[in-house]
Amino acid sequence: MTKREIGRRGFLAGTAGGLVAGAAGGLAKPAIAQERIEWNMVMPWPMNAPGVGVNAGRFAEMVTAMSGGRLVIKLFGAGELVPPFEVLDAVQNDVAQVGHASPYYWQGKAPSLNYFTTVPFGLTAWELAGWLYFGEGQALWEEVYAPFGIQPFFAGSSGVQAGGWFRREVNTVDDLKGLKMRIAGLGGEVMRRLGVAVVLTPPGEIFPALQSGTVDAAEWVGPWNDLAFGLYKAAPYYYMPAFHEPGPSLEIIVNQARYRALPDDLQAIIAHAAQATSMVSIADFAFHNVVSLQPLLDKGVELRTFSDEIVEALGEATKEVLGEMAERDPLTRRVHDSFTAFNQQAARYAKWAELPNLMMRQKVLGV
Amino acid sequence: MTKREIGRRGFLAGTAGGLVAGAAGGLAKPAIAQERIEWNMVMPWPMNAPGVGVNAGRFAEMVTAMSGGRLVIKLFGAGELVPPFEVLDAVQNDVAQVGHASPYYWQGKAPSLNYFTTVPFGLTAWELAGWLYFGEGQALWEEVYAPFGIQPFFAGSSGVQAGGWFRREVNTVDDLKGLKMRIAGLGGEVMRRLGVAVVLTPPGEIFPALQSGTVDAAEWVGPWNDLAFGLYKAAPYYYMPAFHEPGPSLEIIVNQARYRALPDDLQAIIAHAAQATSMVSIADFAFHNVVSLQPLLDKGVELRTFSDEIVEALGEATKEVLGEMAERDPLTRRVHDSFTAFNQQAARYAKWAELPNLMMRQKVLGV
Repeated sequence: MTKREIGRRGFLAGTAGGLVAGAAGGLAKPAIAQERIEWNMVMPWPMNAPGVGVNAGRFAEMVTAMSGGRLVIKLFGAGELVPPFEVLDAVQNDVAQVGHASPYYWQGKAPSLNYFTTVPFGLTAWELAGWLYFGEGQALWEEVYAPFGIQPFFAGSSGVQAGGWFRREVNTVDDLKGLKMRIAGLGGEVMRRLGVAVVLTPPGEIFPALQSGTVDAAEWVGPWNDLAFGLYKAAPYYYMPAFHEPGPSLEIIVNQARYRALPDDLQAIIAHAAQATSMVSIADFAFHNVVSLQPLLDKGVELRTFSDEIVEALGEATKEVLGEMAERDPLTRRVHDSFTAFNQQAARYAKWAELPNLMMRQKVLGV
Repeated sequence: MTKREIGRRGFLAGTAGGLVAGAAGGLAKPAIAQERIEWNMVMPWPMNAPGVGVNAGRFAEMVTAMSGGRLVIKLFGAGELVPPFEVLDAVQNDVAQVGHASPYYWQGKAPSLNYFTTVPFGLTAWELAGWLYFGEGQALWEEVYAPFGIQPFFAGSSGVQAGGWFRREVNTVDDLKGLKMRIAGLGGEVMRRLGVAVVLTPPGEIFPALQSGTVDAAEWVGPWNDLAFGLYKAAPYYYMPAFHEPGPSLEIIVNQARYRALPDDLQAIIAHAAQATSMVSIADFAFHNVVSLQPLLDKGVELRTFSDEIVEALGEATKEVLGEMAERDPLTRRVHDSFTAFNQQAARYAKWAELPNLMMRQKVLGV
């Protein structure tokens, strides 16, 4: 990122058509090179929050660096410009020109957005990227966001998350009944159908709620972020992985009119910076989760996986929840059908590829 | 990519220092914006070869588009400018300024380069990206390439490959003895120690060699590329996945002097275009392998996995081969140790994360 703060010089929207035409020519470009565009970027995470705030910051730095300071992105942490859950509105209303979030934060506006983040027993991070870039995913996503005037970009993934911290072991579906659990999104709805009392504690309150027994269980992200939150101090049993978040994604959302008004080279910089951010984000979570497992074990954490009985019940409830969601509107139905068909194929491929690959290594390395 | 071919205008090397200084200032930039740099890019694959040639082409297009045509990369397919296996030499000698390949093609120059592609029972694609970007990987890789004046960048991965096509089933280590197999790299050396007669058939000759019985088995890439090669017509048993290529990577290698002579914004464009290419490449292979499995099954292909007995023997031979390689020079030892330590941690994490995640989905979807 250019260190020097470049003052706001207004936007190019008024003359954008001419500038785009100029960019296509080539020789007209130096005139554009002297313009400075500044965009506001908002997100629901604190500045520099590991994996998410940092990831948004990387995108902003990439764009500024690659454009040689012609497009400067000024990043605001949660609440600094708009409240955390008004990121989409802010980009739609041009208060910010770009946002960083996760699509399912806006499921209240369009339930299909869950599929562009993650659904229980759904796609892994690399499969989701495949469906978005090479399957029907990106076109469907753009259709969902079109009424909001939003251009979406995949921005990476945490990889599979963790199932959560439990104060006592859960082995049967009966053990879940009446349990109070902090769990987000569709996973919460699935758990509710198994008799869990679902609560949505804000991130900062998860630790005290779990420690005091206000909740019996709570999920957050995975070893890296959970270690930083100190959740191991509040509950000894760590269930891995999350049935409900097999590869939740991040998004970069851009005000579509602003995006289209950019010259071709700056549009390319935005689109490819999103792809670069995605790769770095996946690597970031992969590395830090891997190296955070042993420190958790050193603190006496007891690892568990959900029992077959519980997985089966969660699977049945998931089919109900997703099936009902698909009934809500025709576009959600189309997204559901496309995702589900690819997920079925991906599971069959993984059975012969990623899964036995990991099993062979585990055996050979003796872990 | 700008459609118009921009003529070669010579390189900036002579005045590079001044240009870089200018770039740092900001106002001097329009002068740079009028320069046109053209780089040659070479690769060992045919133009537009799925997954690899296409991937190199994407990188070239991204750079040209993001730089607004200031840095134009002219791509040459295998043999068009230099022979396929002289890509590294060409970049080192400035015949080409950038190359696209896989690091283990140059293992004859530095055995440690295997680790930056893949080794048997090694890292997955996302773990390798983690080790490179956030662990010790990238710094070690730059150290390995420094004597060649090469700046390396990760350029994506095929994901786990397939174990190969076999004319008859192999269930025991005895079944492998005397088998003639086309298998590349360290996997070949491991197989040789189990009594396999290893041959290295060039890609175009794999199909006839397998069909005629000149070889009993042959590995190529995975469902997507193997389907295109028609290998299912020559041998009925398809062993998945590859013990020897759990996540082989691609690379973009740049002549370091040329890279350093670029202004800051073009350096950023090269580095982030490599990251963007990486993400798209992983998604490309993930999507196309997933959708290529059913067509293979429709053709009557019999899927198999290697037996526990064979995996165990391959594991022992792998430890020997990698152990001996690490003795060859101190830098290979350091790379080996860093990779191996991270691989051990990654396997332990995968045991509780990716592996049970894939198993749960498989069970719920009934595949």
